[in-house]
Amino acid sequence: MIPMNQTEGLYKIFPWNIVESGWNAEKNRASGSIFSLGNGRFGHRANFEEEYSGDTLQGHYVGGVYYPDRTKVGWWKNGYPETFAKVLNATNWSIIDVKINGISLDLHNATTIFEFERNLNMQNALLTRSFRVEVEPGVEVKILSERFCNMASPNRALIRYSIESVSGVKRIQISPAVDADVNNEDTNWDEKFWQFNRASVTEDDSACVVNTTEKTAFKVATAFASRLEIDGLEVPSNGAFKREKLAGIMYDVTPETGQKVVLLKHVGLVSSLNHLEEDVELLAQNEAHLGRENGFESEYNAHCAEWANIWRNGDIEIEGDESAQQAIRFNIFHLNATYRGDDPQLNIGPKGFTGEKYGGATYWDTEAYCLPFYLNTHDDSVARQLLVYRFNHLEQAISNAKKLGFNHGAALYPMVTMNGEECHNEWEITFEEIHRNGAIAYAIFNYVRHTGDDRYLVDMGFDVLLGIARFWSQRATFSESRKKWMILGVTGPNEYENNVNNNWYTNYIACWCMNYAIEVAEWLSENHSNVFDTKCVAWDLDSKVEFKEWKKRIDGMHLPSLEGSNVFLQQDGFMDKEQLFAFDLPSSDRPINQNWSWDRILRSVFIKQADVLQGLYFFGDHFSRKQLEDNFDFYEPRTVHESSLSPCVHSVLAAKLGKIDKAYEMYLRTSRLDLDDYNKEIHEGLHITSMAGTWMSVVEGFGGFSVLNGVPHFSTVLPKEWKSYAFRILFRGRLLRVTVNKKDSNVLLESGSDLIVVLNDKEIGLTVI
Amino acid sequence: MIPMNQTEGLYKIFPWNIVESGWNAEKNRASGSIFSLGNGRFGHRANFEEEYSGDTLQGHYVGGVYYPDRTKVGWWKNGYPETFAKVLNATNWSIIDVKINGISLDLHNATTIFEFERNLNMQNALLTRSFRVEVEPGVEVKILSERFCNMASPNRALIRYSIESVSGVKRIQISPAVDADVNNEDTNWDEKFWQFNRASVTEDDSACVVNTTEKTAFKVATAFASRLEIDGLEVPSNGAFKREKLAGIMYDVTPETGQKVVLLKHVGLVSSLNHLEEDVELLAQNEAHLGRENGFESEYNAHCAEWANIWRNGDIEIEGDESAQQAIRFNIFHLNATYRGDDPQLNIGPKGFTGEKYGGATYWDTEAYCLPFYLNTHDDSVARQLLVYRFNHLEQAISNAKKLGFNHGAALYPMVTMNGEECHNEWEITFEEIHRNGAIAYAIFNYVRHTGDDRYLVDMGFDVLLGIARFWSQRATFSESRKKWMILGVTGPNEYENNVNNNWYTNYIACWCMNYAIEVAEWLSENHSNVFDTKCVAWDLDSKVEFKEWKKRIDGMHLPSLEGSNVFLQQDGFMDKEQLFAFDLPSSDRPINQNWSWDRILRSVFIKQADVLQGLYFFGDHFSRKQLEDNFDFYEPRTVHESSLSPCVHSVLAAKLGKIDKAYEMYLRTSRLDLDDYNKEIHEGLHITSMAGTWMSVVEGFGGFSVLNGVPHFSTVLPKEWKSYAFRILFRGRLLRVTVNKKDSNVLLESGSDLIVVLNDKEIGLTVI
Repeated sequence: MIPMNQTEGLYKIFPWNIVESGWNAEKNRASGSIFSLGNGRFGHRANFEEEYSGDTLQGHYVGGVYYPDRTKVGWWKNGYPETFAKVLNATNWSIIDVKINGISLDLHNATTIFEFERNLNMQNALLTRSFRVEVEPGVEVKILSERFCNMASPNRALIRYSIESVSGVKRIQISPAVDADVNNEDTNWDEKFWQFNRASVTEDDSACVVNTTEKTAFKVATAFASRLEIDGLEVPSNGAFKREKLAGIMYDVTPETGQKVVLLKHVGLVSSLNHLEEDVELLAQNEAHLGRENGFESEYNAHCAEWANIWRNGDIEIEGDESAQQAIRFNIFHLNATYRGDDPQLNIGPKGFTGEKYGGATYWDTEAYCLPFYLNTHDDSVARQLLVYRFNHLEQAISNAKKLGFNHGAALYPMVTMNGEECHNEWEITFEEIHRNGAIAYAIFNYVRHTGDDRYLVDMGFDVLLGIARFWSQRATFSESRKKWMILGVTGPNEYENNVNNNWYTNYIACWCMNYAIEVAEWLSENHSNVFDTKCVAWDLDSKVEFKEWKKRIDGMHLPSLEGSNVFLQQDGFMDKEQLFAFDLPSSDRPINQNWSWDRILRSVFIKQADVLQGLYFFGDHFSRKQLEDNFDFYEPRTVHESSLSPCVHSVLAAKLGKIDKAYEMYLRTSRLDLDDYNKEIHEGLHITSMAGTWMSVVEGFGGFSVLNGVPHFSTVLPKEWKSYAFRILFRGRLLRVTVNKKDSNVLLESGSDLIVVLNDKEIGLTVI
Repeated sequence: MIPMNQTEGLYKIFPWNIVESGWNAEKNRASGSIFSLGNGRFGHRANFEEEYSGDTLQGHYVGGVYYPDRTKVGWWKNGYPETFAKVLNATNWSIIDVKINGISLDLHNATTIFEFERNLNMQNALLTRSFRVEVEPGVEVKILSERFCNMASPNRALIRYSIESVSGVKRIQISPAVDADVNNEDTNWDEKFWQFNRASVTEDDSACVVNTTEKTAFKVATAFASRLEIDGLEVPSNGAFKREKLAGIMYDVTPETGQKVVLLKHVGLVSSLNHLEEDVELLAQNEAHLGRENGFESEYNAHCAEWANIWRNGDIEIEGDESAQQAIRFNIFHLNATYRGDDPQLNIGPKGFTGEKYGGATYWDTEAYCLPFYLNTHDDSVARQLLVYRFNHLEQAISNAKKLGFNHGAALYPMVTMNGEECHNEWEITFEEIHRNGAIAYAIFNYVRHTGDDRYLVDMGFDVLLGIARFWSQRATFSESRKKWMILGVTGPNEYENNVNNNWYTNYIACWCMNYAIEVAEWLSENHSNVFDTKCVAWDLDSKVEFKEWKKRIDGMHLPSLEGSNVFLQQDGFMDKEQLFAFDLPSSDRPINQNWSWDRILRSVFIKQADVLQGLYFFGDHFSRKQLEDNFDFYEPRTVHESSLSPCVHSVLAAKLGKIDKAYEMYLRTSRLDLDDYNKEIHEGLHITSMAGTWMSVVEGFGGFSVLNGVPHFSTVLPKEWKSYAFRILFRGRLLRVTVNKKDSNVLLESGSDLIVVLNDKEIGLTVI
């Protein structure tokens, strides 16, 4: 194989497209991630349809289908979970095996490859790949593959694979197939994750494989129905075949030069997550057949229409900076490809459908970073599903806490999970990064503040808040020596400190949680006293006694601060460290997590993500501008931003404090993280959850969006690098469009009933024009 | 198989013997550990010679022969070592396969077993095992196996295996063999640790296998020469055989009822650790032949004479408490079986030759707990080897420190090692339990104090002290905010705290190390100025400048203490914990390391081993009695003694403070730890290093032995449970015998030149009578 165009830069910049030009085998894993597709229910990496014998990471994923891999640790510590849920590589449904004159089409072995291009059209969520290839001297074909995971019918996908005979082609064999023989690269013990059930084929050119996960027993049926056309005319197949765990259809044609052979592969994918086990096979087959009956145009149009809806509410337009424009859309695209919000069993995996690294699908990222995106760009029901997800895991959170010695309904949500059980196992994270409980309570507050849906509190929210508040209450210790309540032995969001005492962020949010739970309880007892009474019985809650205990902790909590200043101290003893700044570090030392030993990082002043600032981001209105600024000025220079979740919070705060250049600098660090592969790791998959931070940087940062007392507020700034930007917000049934340019800022009510908003400190009454 | 005598208690108590009576298959792994043998060069578990198809942990070990197993961790952290040295299960040389009338002798399948007994004679280091067995109805034999690892000729071992034909025996086939086909139970990745080289046999009834460790390329030859006698008359063999990695000799005899068939298996074991690779096979064969030429009596007598020497200097006699008598001898026996001190490549593995658990052979246990035992019961050269061992690893300690970001010759000795490289991998231990450096310096001080051998300082000691002092100097941070030097982010000897700041023990010993290094440097420059000058050049030492820096740290070090008291605080923030006592814990919670999650242990007040007391044990003469007492009274009730190294230090301090009952209570916890299997884990092997603590409890605790300014001091107490006790001390060429009974205490000089000692505050001049 002679690569024709070894582009060293990464991807071409277009407002709506990501384009890879020229074939580069070394980039194949990275591009496999970048060009991933998903429809919130399932998805896959941009693996080739035809065989590829070079290096590739195969990846097809079904949301919520996981395997609890046995935990692997060096030294076992009490309380570690027995298993660690792995995202599973599932049945490969993109296979279209091609032989030209009997020779396998395989870019790894091809004589010459011309005009190779991958193009992700983000507007329509369509991936196309095209190239000309000489499979052997004198034998040349032109390939165009188009595919999408159907957003309108989320059990379906479609591939249109076209082969144009350019020269020397005598015979083309095309075999679309589904193959259940898949393995994870990421496995602890090389165990098999899947049990194969059966492969089946039908006479009308469809095939199906069914397999079931070991241990968790998720049954997944993956079917397809195919159709082959030459220059638009259907050609019959040469029958079906089965081979081990694979089932396929064989076409064998002899096109003339210039003719186009087009294969349509309509995929149907159904799992027992949403259906009866015994039904999945038939349902998957039905979906595939239905797709084929509809045909490409009909399927594609419905899919595009659905994405048009998504973009209508969720797009951000940036004028004057095409690279920023592309990046923000890339982030929005993947967030929507990962999560659709119609199933409370699903959540936002850190790699979405783009890779298998990291066990578990749910981190505190969901509540702390992702929720605002879905809350403001989708119907309220989407964000609500994320809250229902945690409510459904409450019992398991209570049992997690029990394992660590807590009782009486105290709930500790896991650091990482699939089904509510903890599936992370480093003690300093699993057992100590307990601040995650705070973000889960905060998400409830945030959701209710935004939507006004206080029904959620009645039905589910209070239960979650109670479990969380009880945890904090039990987790706090009274220091006789300092006469203060304390939270000892924690890891804050800044994971470059472990097992510290009195992490300001953790202590603050713990108090806030207990306080909010009391507020909600009081509101509940006033407005839904029967419900409240029932809950008191169900949860064995003597609110007078228990709240009194909580209040002691709220009032007496030790919140470390730097004497004589506004600065809140990250934890006890923080000022004992050598006080250096990130710019003191030689560039050869950065990132420090690749160049320093772990202990050196721990005892240094350097911060992965500044958790005091995270607290000020959440609770900005509890503090004066001067407090925000003094803390920002203290922490920002000590922060190395080696968490992908770090820069967005700094960007938002900097914008709020009028430090526009800093805000823009931080925005740049988050928005093109994956597209420019800053951390040289996108071959493993993309950073899905941190993508929400990019959206946050624009809307909450530059757009200064927040909801105060039920009223949307905007304080807009414009980075000098941009001509203008615009975004929309879905707020309680209204669609708002905010535009900011060099001259002025505007908020328009595009649909919904009249509304008052505050734009740059001015109240404005809005009516649909 | 019908077990005849399922004794539920563990082992019978005799002053010089450990006896297991009755066959109990469930106890087989535990007994496999208890009855292990060794001669400091190699050793093995008490596996049966004949086949045993039931559950057993096979174990033959060669000191210093290890395999660097690839590290296994959940989440990799920068600085972790790539490999983790494993103690290797080596060639099985105890095999004597027996067939009676063609049926394998196998206790797992035997019809009935009578009078099974294992008996470890500690005085002569001889293991015997005897039983009668019905191999099938009507066919019965009586077996007596005797074996020892030759202490006089440490490349040899000997097994005498006798079969008495009781009834129905027509034919006995006996096949002694060596088998190189061995695996570790403890392996990270199921890799093969050994490469098989060859098996060979000779016509004169000897056989040998040679194998080489993967990666480390240690070549080990294991040979034997055998001889069979019936009623004392030699019987020729039926030839030799080889099978895969095994080589053996076959005897086939037809004894009459009442006749005794006795097999002698003389083993020779030689490794490339001490010999040229090309020589090991021949040397091993020679050893085996030499053994056979000498015969049983001669070999055994020489072995017994060597052990008689050991016991003459090292025995402790306890009158009035046979269980304590047995226990102390059991500990002394295994310490001597593990380490002989003639090879600076060897050290004292935590499981010795009794099991394969834990990688590495060397912990700080050696310097902190084991050194005093060898120092006082053996020639000075034995303890010196332990110091040479560390000197030989200095370059690697410097490179370990470099990996963690230190420079200019700073040395950090590993937490666990075989060859100087770190082979432990939990960050909170590997990177942070740096106090180990202190114990290594202290051992030098302790050795010189005891032996007066200041030549060691000139040749090697100063180099080690310099590397260690440099490490401490670089590891300390100056806190601008408190104007004090600090050591942040450490784990002290109390491993129930991780990543704490200003661990008192660590800070104190760090200062002491720097101070001692300066003292030694000054002594060196006065007494060996040429040597000192050479070292200054070699180590790039500008002593004026560098020592000034060290002194800043020594003088300005923060040593946390409890205000208004004598109590030194374990670390910053210790008093913020809920102040509970161990007796507050419900018994169902203990040991907490089996019942509490790790985070709960960490944030609790409970102490695994009290490191402040460890410091007061080392540096007792730096503090007043009142200081010792106040700290003892503070820490002892907070200590759960869940380290096998903990009770001995408390025992010594309690005895010093006149708290005899407490001292005795603590003594009991350490002395029968393995014999009574307190922690239900002896099936994995014994706690060799903590055995030294038992010796320490008697000699330094009850005997109150210490060396001050070159003079041995004794302050004796007698636990009320004992009638008397006696021990010996080797001190600078003299052998002292100390006896303590209810009436008085005596010190006798048994050999060597006149000496002044202090006994219970009275100076006594001693002369050999």
